[in-house]
Amino acid sequence: MLEKIKKIAVLTSGGDAPGMNAAIRAVARSCAYYNLDCIGVYRGYQGLIENDFELLTARSVRNVINRGGTFLKSARSKEFRTEEGRKKAYKNLQNSGIDALIVIGGDGTFTGAMKLQEEYNFPVIGIPGTIDNDINGTDYCIGYDTALNTVVEAIDKIRDTASSHNRLFLVEVMGRDAGDIALNSGIGAGAEEILIPEEDKGIEQMLFSLERSRKSGKTSSIIVVAEGEKSGKNIFELAEYIGENLEGYDIRVSVLGHIQRGGAPSCFDRVLASRLGVGAVEALMRGESNVMVGITNRMVTSVDFEVAIKGQRPLDKELRRVLNITTI
Amino acid sequence: MLEKIKKIAVLTSGGDAPGMNAAIRAVARSCAYYNLDCIGVYRGYQGLIENDFELLTARSVRNVINRGGTFLKSARSKEFRTEEGRKKAYKNLQNSGIDALIVIGGDGTFTGAMKLQEEYNFPVIGIPGTIDNDINGTDYCIGYDTALNTVVEAIDKIRDTASSHNRLFLVEVMGRDAGDIALNSGIGAGAEEILIPEEDKGIEQMLFSLERSRKSGKTSSIIVVAEGEKSGKNIFELAEYIGENLEGYDIRVSVLGHIQRGGAPSCFDRVLASRLGVGAVEALMRGESNVMVGITNRMVTSVDFEVAIKGQRPLDKELRRVLNITTI
Amino acid sequence: MLEKIKKIAVLTSGGDAPGMNAAIRAVARSCAYYNLDCIGVYRGYQGLIENDFELLTARSVRNVINRGGTFLKSARSKEFRTEEGRKKAYKNLQNSGIDALIVIGGDGTFTGAMKLQEEYNFPVIGIPGTIDNDINGTDYCIGYDTALNTVVEAIDKIRDTASSHNRLFLVEVMGRDAGDIALNSGIGAGAEEILIPEEDKGIEQMLFSLERSRKSGKTSSIIVVAEGEKSGKNIFELAEYIGENLEGYDIRVSVLGHIQRGGAPSCFDRVLASRLGVGAVEALMRGESNVMVGITNRMVTSVDFEVAIKGQRPLDKELRRVLNITTI
Amino acid sequence: MLEKIKKIAVLTSGGDAPGMNAAIRAVARSCAYYNLDCIGVYRGYQGLIENDFELLTARSVRNVINRGGTFLKSARSKEFRTEEGRKKAYKNLQNSGIDALIVIGGDGTFTGAMKLQEEYNFPVIGIPGTIDNDINGTDYCIGYDTALNTVVEAIDKIRDTASSHNRLFLVEVMGRDAGDIALNSGIGAGAEEILIPEEDKGIEQMLFSLERSRKSGKTSSIIVVAEGEKSGKNIFELAEYIGENLEGYDIRVSVLGHIQRGGAPSCFDRVLASRLGVGAVEALMRGESNVMVGITNRMVTSVDFEVAIKGQRPLDKELRRVLNITTI
Repeated sequence: MLEKIKKIAVLTSGGDAPGMNAAIRAVARSCAYYNLDCIGVYRGYQGLIENDFELLTARSVRNVINRGGTFLKSARSKEFRTEEGRKKAYKNLQNSGIDALIVIGGDGTFTGAMKLQEEYNFPVIGIPGTIDNDINGTDYCIGYDTALNTVVEAIDKIRDTASSHNRLFLVEVMGRDAGDIALNSGIGAGAEEILIPEEDKGIEQMLFSLERSRKSGKTSSIIVVAEGEKSGKNIFELAEYIGENLEGYDIRVSVLGHIQRGGAPSCFDRVLASRLGVGAVEALMRGESNVMVGITNRMVTSVDFEVAIKGQRPLDKELRRVLNITTI
Repeated sequence: MLEKIKKIAVLTSGGDAPGMNAAIRAVARSCAYYNLDCIGVYRGYQGLIENDFELLTARSVRNVINRGGTFLKSARSKEFRTEEGRKKAYKNLQNSGIDALIVIGGDGTFTGAMKLQEEYNFPVIGIPGTIDNDINGTDYCIGYDTALNTVVEAIDKIRDTASSHNRLFLVEVMGRDAGDIALNSGIGAGAEEILIPEEDKGIEQMLFSLERSRKSGKTSSIIVVAEGEKSGKNIFELAEYIGENLEGYDIRVSVLGHIQRGGAPSCFDRVLASRLGVGAVEALMRGESNVMVGITNRMVTSVDFEVAIKGQRPLDKELRRVLNITTI
Repeated sequence: MLEKIKKIAVLTSGGDAPGMNAAIRAVARSCAYYNLDCIGVYRGYQGLIENDFELLTARSVRNVINRGGTFLKSARSKEFRTEEGRKKAYKNLQNSGIDALIVIGGDGTFTGAMKLQEEYNFPVIGIPGTIDNDINGTDYCIGYDTALNTVVEAIDKIRDTASSHNRLFLVEVMGRDAGDIALNSGIGAGAEEILIPEEDKGIEQMLFSLERSRKSGKTSSIIVVAEGEKSGKNIFELAEYIGENLEGYDIRVSVLGHIQRGGAPSCFDRVLASRLGVGAVEALMRGESNVMVGITNRMVTSVDFEVAIKGQRPLDKELRRVLNITTI
Repeated sequence: MLEKIKKIAVLTSGGDAPGMNAAIRAVARSCAYYNLDCIGVYRGYQGLIENDFELLTARSVRNVINRGGTFLKSARSKEFRTEEGRKKAYKNLQNSGIDALIVIGGDGTFTGAMKLQEEYNFPVIGIPGTIDNDINGTDYCIGYDTALNTVVEAIDKIRDTASSHNRLFLVEVMGRDAGDIALNSGIGAGAEEILIPEEDKGIEQMLFSLERSRKSGKTSSIIVVAEGEKSGKNIFELAEYIGENLEGYDIRVSVLGHIQRGGAPSCFDRVLASRLGVGAVEALMRGESNVMVGITNRMVTSVDFEVAIKGQRPLDKELRRVLNITTI
């Protein structure tokens, strides 16, 4: 099987993440290094269906390592969820003489690739790229470290105004299913408390913390709220609820939103993306398929897609404790 | 009168702005330079009433020039709006032997200072510090340049994700009464169109621009919306309206919010604040009062408070035209 | 003459500056707006000689406004200094049907354009783009504001380590002929003292300031040194000299170098570049030639090239005084 | 022994690193959390000798998590290398009722702590804080991640000007004994080649790479040079040597210098510092001594000081390969 890989296609799919360009670059450069052809597919699986291909040489990817987003663009494709759509995609891959596909994205992206492998026995490899860091089998996903820095820089700015006015700020960060961003940026930004999907006690715990803080002499506070937290209130309702149940705080809300997805990738994400891009091409050359390349204990590893997408990782209890202790 | 000034108090009031610390520092250092005492008043006019004073030496203000917010803190004081409150404030100033007051803030701040001058003939000088840049008689207010950079950096990040997904983004920026931030950051961020308080045509003009853009081959777009724009819809309703009246766009909203107030000040704002801080002390030494020091045509000038707060400046038509042309 | 302008070429020359891309974009977009053709010339005057031209449409310049450097690239051309070289350049302009040329750069760039005008009566307009801000007839050159922010951010970092170790740092910044960067960044970064080409007293004044500072309780200090200062010593010799003549300081040197030229332009520079790009095209349409468009008192103006390049502006004495006062 | 720990002192020593303040904060907050007293020692071991102590409450460390440098300041102490000096230090610790000492720094710092333990059986724990990342027994040292981002951002700026002018840049980064910064920032910044202490082949390899790059169509290049590389030439001599042995390159040098030590810490470094600060206090409470707390495979661990300082880690060969492949 090894001799078959002569031409590799690469696409990005799902939400974009900083470092995706660095991963595409590493795939294209690895192909050049090993004398393989590299084809860039635009707009994810939709581009696969619409034959939106372009040859990527080593020079095509110059000056992209420092750019946020993905120059191959991303899209969500309904058509690819149909058998018909995948058939078109497979035909296009065949017609272009493409032997294998590298997909960069999250669990939805990997699910699509698994279908292609399953139905057409087409070699596929995944690279985890999502700021939510909610993929199993890798310690880090591309974009996560950058997003944490973006969040922490934003909260640093908010704290300037919070402490100038003795205010309480609720800051909403991304994380529909996982509180990793909230927990880590909460520690990093010196937040008072966090609300995350993994915990239920939520609001009362928070009121208690705020009460304690005020007594200990804090005059301004930041609460980091993951968008997927489970209180049943949106962040503006939460602010109102706290205002009604806690005296003496001037409360404001800030929803960080899409700035969290953009920006020049951190060095960490660039190195991670470069390693995984190289690792994906080399995995294909070794004959691997249906796996995601990831980082475990600082080494590049492969895990089955089934493992990668199998759902939520538990909350890191040590980090939770670090937050509790350092916000005293 | 000149010989009277021996001790100067300084406070910040209203919304905080990056560079306020640099202005306080310049006031304190100027006092040291001219052998005057400098008293910092905490929490604006409320601190004046509550006698929340601290001696500021040249060394008290070390390492503050690069910090956002205001270390003297700011607050809005209802009590100072009463005669009773101002009487207490005046007593406290007298009791501490303070001869003059420098206030850093916007039009509300200056209005307070005018009252003090009016009722007690107390020498007051204003320094314009507000990110909205909505003060007459000065080309620039402290904090405005930094806020523009913050907005433009945020939109640069949003554009990464907008162009990765061929999306249309509505980005809300500050500016309740003036579209300066929206207009300048709109040009700087390469936005497609802006919605500002000074213009009424708003939405239809925008739909037209977007239609034109799509035809000219643009695949993603940014609309900058000042929070005070007059369409009668909030930004989420606007997004819905555009979605209903324009085909083929995937529309998202981002409200930049309080990050616009924070952050390390730009060099421009640090220099501006330093000049105005020095200028304010020197104006007091020359016997001036009831004026704001500002920058006009790159020179430090004084204008009466009445002029400074007299309301909205007209929209800069040349800049409006530059936006129209450069977004073609 | 007005009817002649149908096709405009644009080039960047000399040292690159952040915002040059925004200026090129504004030229290209203005041409599109006014139904003119726009030709980008690569590598400055050398590309003019080598016929290295490319059509710039409104879409060619998408996503460049936020990028440092110049995508048209810059070069210094010895050949263009010869009559022969300029003849080739003129021929190429004629052969491509180009009616006018916009050059973005500094005084060397403008001198080249003047020759073309003089020898071939070819319409030329200049846009000031140089981080040194050493052009007459404009309050600001493109790139200067960004460079100041870069310098101030770098010195903020250096101060972290300076104040952690009670050190004295000499920081070299750009400015071969003018101390504008040193003076403004010196104020902005809270430097102790500056050494600039416009002043001669230099070192002894500095030793005096440092002595005074130490006595007033300062434990760490930053000296900003313009690369063109006139002490006759390079910055490392200066450090040695200070070490020998001043007790108790641990002295370090940092040469900021080329990082000062790069980076995403500030909002100020993007707006400035957009205004001047539009202004240059409109000036050509009005029949102007042999002038530079600049900003004076916040308005776009034109000045003769002779005025623009006529040499050094005097030091801003008010700013010098602000530095002296605020570093007490 | 456990019951003995009632009062813990903390100091920073050696070169400062971003995140040290976050570590001090975590130590102080952990002490507050566990009802221990926390004493901050100024200026490292010198402050221990000079009794330069201050009580740190939970509130003493507010608003420091985002600041570069170390507010406890750092210094190198010759006196502490003498028995006499250490005796004074021990006496001061005893007199203040301090039961244990946490030192934040690199191998020199740990060596000092070992002496104190050895001679006086005084409980000591180390926290690795050094941008060089050259400590054994921990995957990451505090400050390293931030320094990598600083370097990569600086090279991004340099690349703007490099690619505007088709230049070759030699960029010197920190790393006297270890090439980790050069290797990782080299990958992250898309450098052409690196020169590091761990490799000897150096210059000829580099000339070969550059030759290859030019042939493959690259028009500008960045070489990252660790300050401790072994070619026997300084970076300016290197530039000259390359200029003499390679045609057609316009070569420039940039020494990044001390900006690499400063700046607001990255989220990664803040979280790392918070975990290690908590970990150090808890290790003392468990009765550990003479160890460094570090991170191994994402877990907080302890290793003997002997292991931590035992010298150079081997170069990461996978990363070296990633660089070679991605710069093709």
